This record gives sequence, C-alpha cells and structure tokens, in this order.
Amino acid sequence: MKFIVDQQVEDIELPENLKLNTFLKEFHSDCLHPECNFGFYGFAFGQSPFPVPNIMQEALKKNSDKGNYAPVPGIEELRETIARYNKYYFGIDVDPKRVYVGPGTKELIYNLLEILHGTVILPTPAWLGYLPQIRFLKKNFHMLPTRENKKILAHDLRKLALRLHDRQKILIFNNPNNPTGLVYDRIELEEIAEVCVEQNIMIISDEIYAQTTYDFSKFVSMAKIYPEGTFVTNGLSKSHASGGYRLGYVIFPQHALNVKFQFKKILATEYTAVSSPIQYAAIAGFEISKEMDEYFRITRTIHEIMGEYTFHALNKIDGVKTTKPEATFYLLADFNHYTPALNRVGITTSQKFAESIIQHPYHTAIVAGDSLVLERTDFSARMAFVDYDGTKAYEYYLTNPPKTASEKEEFVKINAPRLVGGIEKIEMFFENLSKNYLSKIELDSVKIPN
Amino acid sequence: MKFIVDQQVEDIELPENLKLNTFLKEFHSDCLHPECNFGFYGFAFGQSPFPVPNIMQEALKKNSDKGNYAPVPGIEELRETIARYNKYYFGIDVDPKRVYVGPGTKELIYNLLEILHGTVILPTPAWLGYLPQIRFLKKNFHMLPTRENKKILAHDLRKLALRLHDRQKILIFNNPNNPTGLVYDRIELEEIAEVCVEQNIMIISDEIYAQTTYDFSKFVSMAKIYPEGTFVTNGLSKSHASGGYRLGYVIFPQHALNVKFQFKKILATEYTAVSSPIQYAAIAGFEISKEMDEYFRITRTIHEIMGEYTFHALNKIDGVKTTKPEATFYLLADFNHYTPALNRVGITTSQKFAESIIQHPYHTAIVAGDSLVLERTDFSARMAFVDYDGTKAYEYYLTNPPKTASEKEEFVKINAPRLVGGIEKIEMFFENLSKNYLSKIELDSVKIPN
Repeated sequence: MKFIVDQQVEDIELPENLKLNTFLKEFHSDCLHPECNFGFYGFAFGQSPFPVPNIMQEALKKNSDKGNYAPVPGIEELRETIARYNKYYFGIDVDPKRVYVGPGTKELIYNLLEILHGTVILPTPAWLGYLPQIRFLKKNFHMLPTRENKKILAHDLRKLALRLHDRQKILIFNNPNNPTGLVYDRIELEEIAEVCVEQNIMIISDEIYAQTTYDFSKFVSMAKIYPEGTFVTNGLSKSHASGGYRLGYVIFPQHALNVKFQFKKILATEYTAVSSPIQYAAIAGFEISKEMDEYFRITRTIHEIMGEYTFHALNKIDGVKTTKPEATFYLLADFNHYTPALNRVGITTSQKFAESIIQHPYHTAIVAGDSLVLERTDFSARMAFVDYDGTKAYEYYLTNPPKTASEKEEFVKINAPRLVGGIEKIEMFFENLSKNYLSKIELDSVKIPN
Repeated sequence: MKFIVDQQVEDIELPENLKLNTFLKEFHSDCLHPECNFGFYGFAFGQSPFPVPNIMQEALKKNSDKGNYAPVPGIEELRETIARYNKYYFGIDVDPKRVYVGPGTKELIYNLLEILHGTVILPTPAWLGYLPQIRFLKKNFHMLPTRENKKILAHDLRKLALRLHDRQKILIFNNPNNPTGLVYDRIELEEIAEVCVEQNIMIISDEIYAQTTYDFSKFVSMAKIYPEGTFVTNGLSKSHASGGYRLGYVIFPQHALNVKFQFKKILATEYTAVSSPIQYAAIAGFEISKEMDEYFRITRTIHEIMGEYTFHALNKIDGVKTTKPEATFYLLADFNHYTPALNRVGITTSQKFAESIIQHPYHTAIVAGDSLVLERTDFSARMAFVDYDGTKAYEYYLTNPPKTASEKEEFVKINAPRLVGGIEKIEMFFENLSKNYLSKIELDSVKIPN
C-alpha cells in the first residue's frame, strides 16, 4: 500500500539535535575501537544535568491520583502560582488569566505561530526548533542575522520590517539566547521594542533560560519593556531540570483577549490540556520557596563555572573564538579560522564538519552551523556544557563551593572530566588538521542520516 | 494594540463539551434557586468516573525522578508493553516499532490528519473532537451519515468514495462508537475494509473504547481486518480512567515506513515527546497483570450496568428511543418525537434544546445534535452515564457484585442517585412539554456562549 503524505511535511527536516542523537546511538554500536566504550563527548544535546527538585518529585507523588482532565488553559492554582513566580523573579505583574499552560514551551510556540497572522522574523543563529515549525506551518519568514557581537540590532530590525508588507509581523526573540548564551540588556531591549511599536511587530519572547542568568540581576524580561505586544514563553525544562516532565507556559500580552480566546480553541482542538499530575508538580516548582531559590542559585552558579571553563579552554585553541556565556548552558564557537584547512581535507560544510569530529578518535558531538540557521559553509557550532553528572556536581558544590579561579577549575576537573576531555579532543582535531594528519578518506566514512 | 489572528482559527468553534463545561460553571453560580446547590445532572462530559489504577499510581511515584526527555516515539519499554497489550487483549500482532506514543489520542489523530494527504470521510453522528481538527487543518471532508441502526453501511461508503477524486481518502472510524455506544461486528468490518481496499481509503480507527466493550469477546480491531491500511489509536483515558494523565498511542499500518518517518518529524517539531514519568506509569497500566485485568473486567461491568439502566429508563419515556450501548459510557437518545412540541415553545434547534433542559428545575447537561455533527434541527443527544462516584461504586461492586436484574437496578440506585435523578428530570421536562407547562419566556433566559 502506498501512503501519500502532505508535501510540506516531506519538506521539513528532523530537528538536528534529535537527528544527531539517533545517529550517535547507532554509530556508537558500530565503532570497533575498544576505547569507545565510554560513549561520546556530548556537546550537542542541551539538557540540564541536574536532578528534578525534590519538592516537585514529592508533589508529583502526592498527586498520582489526579486522573481527571484539567481545564484547557491549566489548573487555576498553577496559573496563579506562575503569576506570583513571575512577579517575584522577573518583576512582571501578571493577571493569572493571562497565563496559559501547555505540554512544553515548544508546543506553545508552535500554537502561537499557528494562530498569529503575519510574517515571521527569525534572528540567526537560532535555536534549532523554530525553523521546522515555521516551515511546516508555511509561514512567510525572514532571517535577521546578528552582528559581530552576536546580537540583533534595532536598526537592522527596522530596515527589514520596512521591506515587509504584512500588516502584522512576529519577531521570535530568544533571550537569554540559545545558542550564544548571551543576555540582552535593558537598553538593547528598549531599542528593539521601539522598533516593534513603530512597525507593528509582535514579539514571541522565548525566555526559557531566564532563570539560568548567571548574574541574575541582569535579566530583564521583554514583558516589562513591551507589555502590550509580547508573548513570553517559559517553562520547567531548563530552570527546573525537568525537560522530560513537559510543561511550559505562555504569558499573553495585556489586552490580548481575542488572541487568548482563539488560543484556547486551538489547545482544546489539539490536545485538551497538560497532564494533571505534572501540573501539580509544577505548582510546587513555581511556588516561591527557600528550597527552589537555593536550587536556582546553585544550578546557575554551576552552569556559570562550566561555561567559564569551556569559554577559556576553547579560546585557548589557536584561532578559535567563542561567545562568553552570561546565561544558559551553551556558547557559540567560531571555527572559521580553519576554513581553508577544513576545505583542504574535503570538509566544505558545517554538516560535514560535525560528521568528521564525531569520528574516532575525536568522538565529539556538536551542533553545527546550518542547524543553527547559519550558512552551510559557516563553521560555527553550538557547544553545550552539560556532559557531566549533575547530581554529583550539585552535592559536591553544597560541601565545597569553589570561590577562587583555581578552585573553580578544580571543580570542573573533578566533576566534569568528560567536558575537559572533549575540549582536548577538539584541540587535537584542529592540531591534526593544521599538521595535515587528517586524511580525506578517513573522514569520508561517516554520514549523519537525513 | 490590535492582534490579527489567522482566519481558519477564527472560523472553528470550541469543542462543544468544553464550551458546555465552562458554561455550566458560570451558570451554576448565577442560579438563585437554593436547591441548585448540588450542581447539575451531568450527562454531557464523558470522563470515566473510576480511580486511576493503583499500579499506575505507584509507577508514577517511583518515576518522579525521570526529568530527562524521552525519545520522540516513546520509551522503548512502553512501546514493547503496548505491543504485548495489543496482542493479549486484541489479538493484534504488532512490532513495537509500529507503536508511537503521544500526549493523548486526540493529538495523535490531529498529527495523522496533519500529515496524511487526502479527503476525510466522517461518519455521523461523530465524536465532537474530530470536526474542529478537520476544519482547522482545512482538509476537504465529507460526512457519511449512518443508517437507521446508527452504523455506516459499506455500500454508502463506496457510493461516497466513487464521487471523490482524491487519490487517497481517510475514513475516521470510531469503534466502539462515541456517541452511540455501538460496536461493529466482524462481518460489518470486513465489508467496510473491502470498500477501503477497493477505493484506496486509509482508516484512522479510533478504538479508545475497545477495552470497555461489555461482552469483551465481541470486540474486533480493524487492524486485524485491514492491517495494511489501518492506523489504530488508543490510550489510557477511557480504559484506565486516566484522561488527565494524557497518554495515547497509534499503531501504524504494516509497511508504512515513510509515514512513520514523516510522523516522527512532526512530533519532534511540535512537542518532542510525552512526559517521561507518565510514560513509566503507562508501562504499568499496559503491562498484563491480574490487577489490571480485574480492573478492566469490573469497570466495564459497571459501565454495562449503568448503560442498561439508562437505556431502559430513557426508553420508558413516551416517544423516546435510544441506541442500546454495547461498550463505552454513552448512548444516543432520539427525542425527535417531540419536534412539534419543542418547536411550539420556540425550541427549534438542538442547541436551544440543550440550553433549555439545563434550566431550573431540570438542570440536566447533555450534548445535543449539532455538536455531534448532526442537523441543527435533529433533536438527538449524547447521554453519558458517568455522573456517580466511581471509587465507591467500584468498592461496592467488589463486596456486592449484582447478578440479577433487580440487584443491578438496586446497584444503580445506591451508587448512582444522580443518574437516576437526572433521567427523572428529563422525563419531567417532556411531560411538562406535552402538558404545555413550559413557557416560551422561561426558556429564553439562558444561552450557551459561543
């Protein structure tokens, strides 16, 4: 029997991180080198390594009997708790009625793109999840490349918007940013918001990493700057190390009553509501408590320590430049210094680069340029620094919080040996490349499947 | 600020059951009659009244630490367990690779409709969830009305298919059926399958009520008759009384490799995966065990007892005819005998009928004709018989399983007084209608909001 699938489905690609993950699993079982038993240096998959907070686990246990359907926008107590959480941490005054809960921030962004009319503006480099959504929904879209400092410029946004003739435009704004780890400051936000008011641009402000901002006082939500036009999305996945729980939320702009009503219809049509026991666990996670406050403080500090190490270690490699992360657990590494050398051994695209550096003896998994919506020939890569045992690191931190630079380096070496080892492999790769030790044939043996 | 929402979103309606639920909540607080404190006789919302099986609750508790993202198609152990469950209960031989897990059967059906090309054939009356999905996805669709016996006829399906020029057609087939409670037998399935082979019709066979079939030996899955063209959907919501957990699955047809691959992309693009702790709970729920087997047996028997009572009590009302449920917790009641009388007091549509019978002193919530994709003037209604305390009824059954007809009636009167009371109110409504006691003005005061 021959099944016919809609064309726009055929046309989109599997998000790169999931593709890579599948590939790694399959590739690993094929590698014949005995030392490959340990697996791979994982710089590709962005998942918080920490345990689910106890307080959430207990709440989940207590609510295992909640077999009833929850209300479409979320359980009222959860929406109220999320409103308080946003007030306390981000200084956003929100009526709980403006908060809608969904099964992950990803799906909520998808739902927003489903209902909001207009051309999408996507700053690049971008998180690898947005583009497949935009493509599948057949939205008109335009890239907005960042400048040298890896941030978008208000001036560039205005220039682009003036070329677009749609009555409404939607800017997908990811702050703190995946893949760069950078945080926009208040003045930058104000400049962007000014253009948005002027050009009738709505913002979907994906602030899923807000709580990970290392110097937490530096984070400013776009909802504070542009409350009338910003849809804030956030959730449990990153700050609460609970990506697997699948719960996100969106805060609607002020006075967006009709959008909210339309949104509710879509949620009811597509998935009814988020898992009820998970919603009760989320209430515990978003409730202001000493336990969660400490959890946020410690996990963001450990991310910072790992980020600093990764930043310094990578920038020590000859010719390599990276962003300096201020939040998240990523940075963007620029390997374009090696373009001629890479081309010489047949590595002409970032995809091929990712396929090469996975190979023996490097075994390093990264997310390469074109998966970040960069040019195929741009040898930039997103490096996640989460390949360590988060439970152990958290416990170690509790008893030995590192203060000085050398204590912090020590902390990384003890708690994240694979992070240290992986960066050494990257260094080795580029050394071998410079010394012409890499053969073209060797690199041709691997291919990430489509 | 004015937000522009896509037109197809504006055009769809909130699924009727959710609309009604919201309405009931608001209406209740408005009703000034003191006896209204008790709430409403709930025949509208179809939710299993039983507790979440213990075995699932324990598994959820044990897996509260599962904060990691699950694989897109579902945890391997869960897919294997679902395959064994289908073999054991439904006699379907399934490679676990053909099983995909999603956050509810509703979303999986939506995802299938998203990717499958072709015209949709929708038998009517229909579950109230399909049409908003079809409309929102702008699919071409045709209704296929059932015959006098409330089942579709193979001959009618062929006649319709011959008029459709799409290379591929999709039949949404709901068996056991919501709203009728009827079950198609093997011969009926074979006749339908024959037309599907001949006319290149794929089937989405929504078998979410399979496990509730009262005489369980009578249920036959379409996957056994038409394995090469049937997508079976099922889940936890009805059989495991865990609608609030949000977990469903789809079994792909044999040899549908490309569809499966495309489907995986869509899931990865829209929602990554189902909540991990919930997946572990589902493993316990789908694992073959004495506990679950007894749970299925007892809950389906209680549904049967309630169904039989509802059937007999409604059919005793002068002029009322209903389907005789063989599964599910619904039946379809036909009140068209009263069309002239209803019209006389200004009730000219089924929507208006639902709005009238909610009013004091009837307080009866039903799902009326046009929400079931019937004509607006068809005074048929779906009656759910689940408005009772399922935990108590289950425990009562364990110690006093009713055997004779009078014991069963006794069982209903003791355990489901609101079911009994609600049907009395319906009887009273039609009595008052016949005696011209209903005034036009009285009935005009209520309106279910759009």
